[in-house]
Amino acid sequence: MNTDFKEYYAVIFTSELSGKDTKRYEQVAEEMVTLAKQQPGFVGIDSVRNDLGITISYWESLEDIKNWKMLAEHMQAQKDGREFWYVWYSVKICKVMREYGFPK
Amino acid sequence: MNTDFKEYYAVIFTSELSGKDTKRYEQVAEEMVTLAKQQPGFVGIDSVRNDLGITISYWESLEDIKNWKMLAEHMQAQKDGREFWYVWYSVKICKVMREYGFPK
Repeated sequence: MNTDFKEYYAVIFTSELSGKDTKRYEQVAEEMVTLAKQQPGFVGIDSVRNDLGITISYWESLEDIKNWKMLAEHMQAQKDGREFWYVWYSVKICKVMREYGFPK
Repeated sequence: MNTDFKEYYAVIFTSELSGKDTKRYEQVAEEMVTLAKQQPGFVGIDSVRNDLGITISYWESLEDIKNWKMLAEHMQAQKDGREFWYVWYSVKICKVMREYGFPK
């Protein structure tokens, strides 16, 4: 086991879009990615959508995740998301315990 | 905070396909989902792909994840994956610490 591994955190955001207000949704979604990347503790983000959407953002600490959640522009996007854009969403806060990949 | 929350585990599998041997890849990918669902401790699976692929499987324990990783048919699929199907992949083993959603 690699003892140098530094734990970090993942926010798994799984969602289904309503198909309403699509143009503004896409604009705000893009703005939120740009904004997330500017936040303290941001590590990375992966996002894929077809019928289901999965966006995973990675952060150095739980405090960073909380601060991102509470950021004013992001709060407004969450509110609009519930009102207009999403049929449902799920947020899971996770600790990344270890990782490996290919090629090594 | 909901003190009834029972921690569980997520395997985040992020990958890019080579585009080689696509037909057999799709067949085996489907077989692996079916097989995963039959394993002890399986909780759920979400999978989305466009250029990037994200598959997240959820498990009751780290032991369940290890057993799934070491299952013979899955080991063969991992080997074929490295040889034929993936340009790269990343596996992250995570503990789900809390979750919330919409609608509540």
